[in-house]
Amino acid sequence: MSKIRRRVDRLARVTDIDRPRRRLPRSVREQEIIDAALRVFAKRGYRAAVVDEIADLAGISKPMVYLYLGSKEGLFIACIRRETQRLVTAFREAAGAGDDPARRLWAGLTAFFGFVAAHRDSWVVLHRQAPEQSEAIAAELAAARRSVRAEVTGLIGDGIARGAGGAVHLGRDDADFVAHALVGAADSLTDWMELHPGEPPEGVTLRLMNMTWVGMRNVLAGEVWAPPR
Amino acid sequence: MSKIRRRVDRLARVTDIDRPRRRLPRSVREQEIIDAALRVFAKRGYRAAVVDEIADLAGISKPMVYLYLGSKEGLFIACIRRETQRLVTAFREAAGAGDDPARRLWAGLTAFFGFVAAHRDSWVVLHRQAPEQSEAIAAELAAARRSVRAEVTGLIGDGIARGAGGAVHLGRDDADFVAHALVGAADSLTDWMELHPGEPPEGVTLRLMNMTWVGMRNVLAGEVWAPPR
Repeated sequence: MSKIRRRVDRLARVTDIDRPRRRLPRSVREQEIIDAALRVFAKRGYRAAVVDEIADLAGISKPMVYLYLGSKEGLFIACIRRETQRLVTAFREAAGAGDDPARRLWAGLTAFFGFVAAHRDSWVVLHRQAPEQSEAIAAELAAARRSVRAEVTGLIGDGIARGAGGAVHLGRDDADFVAHALVGAADSLTDWMELHPGEPPEGVTLRLMNMTWVGMRNVLAGEVWAPPR
Repeated sequence: MSKIRRRVDRLARVTDIDRPRRRLPRSVREQEIIDAALRVFAKRGYRAAVVDEIADLAGISKPMVYLYLGSKEGLFIACIRRETQRLVTAFREAAGAGDDPARRLWAGLTAFFGFVAAHRDSWVVLHRQAPEQSEAIAAELAAARRSVRAEVTGLIGDGIARGAGGAVHLGRDDADFVAHALVGAADSLTDWMELHPGEPPEGVTLRLMNMTWVGMRNVLAGEVWAPPR
């Protein structure tokens, strides 16, 4: 390459702020920006986070970040959306299909607690960030919660359908109740995990299965607990 | 009373904006302001709420509101503190003491779901408002959560202490695990309640007891669930 050509190239790089330093396909670049955003949001919280730091971390100019993802809110929503997708996929793949709802639930919960342990930044953004920051963010977090719960409802619904002697009086509302309780419990237990860093995800799952599964098996079988008189 | 005296009194009322319209002890006035704040925060959310509306609703001047409770943040914190206290008291009084942990848990949970159904505004503020609004608010909400959990941990700890044949390998961490799971499940189930307005608090409690109690009884007795091979 001639000296002049190199100089022109360098000038183009310096003047064109919208141009990525490395040539990357848009989809790859976008993922890198979301990676950086996730780290900054997890570290600073939504309000204190600034797009400059995200751009720096992604090795890209701030206008480029805006070009790709629109705004700080857009960045945050992209984080929620991607990490929820990852979490749901991890749960779904682990829980799989099959005849044994206990096994599926156990595998799904292990994947959930494993994800939380392995992806701390993702979990901080999904679990601790404020739903009231904006209506768009609140809607996104509500949708994330619904999609996680839908996975669990599906699994429990399958258990009911196959369940012990066809407990036909249990339906979608019951599956949804169990899913609300389980997702809420699992959510809250990630705080317990933080207080007990020595407990592996498998241990947390085992404790939760012990606490709930026997009772759930009864519910699936249509048994009833009566309050003491 | 002379005509002049009445006139002086009226002038004093008109010019002294710090003076309440009705003569009320400070503590009563403060509770009325918190009542008004709770309604406005529940309706508008923390960010959109304005102190003018709270003052109007309390039938008091805005400077008086500031004099009593400091700031919008102060108002919000006062709401969280008072409503948490009410919730904890309702749980504690219902759960009481006694030998039967199932009965205590059942009564405590019934009181909890009853409180949520009866005090919608309180629950909206405690459950749905953003923890990231400010550090002081986040700290207050975290303290509220801890105090609710401490009640449940105490109850479960009692159950462990009395529990089936002295399961000495269970301790405070185990009680705290169960409390995290139960409080998270109960929290999340208030969303389910909203979707099922026909279900009374007693029904929600019964479902949750069915789902968890049998499993918890096993945990208290030191039994172990093993994952399928």
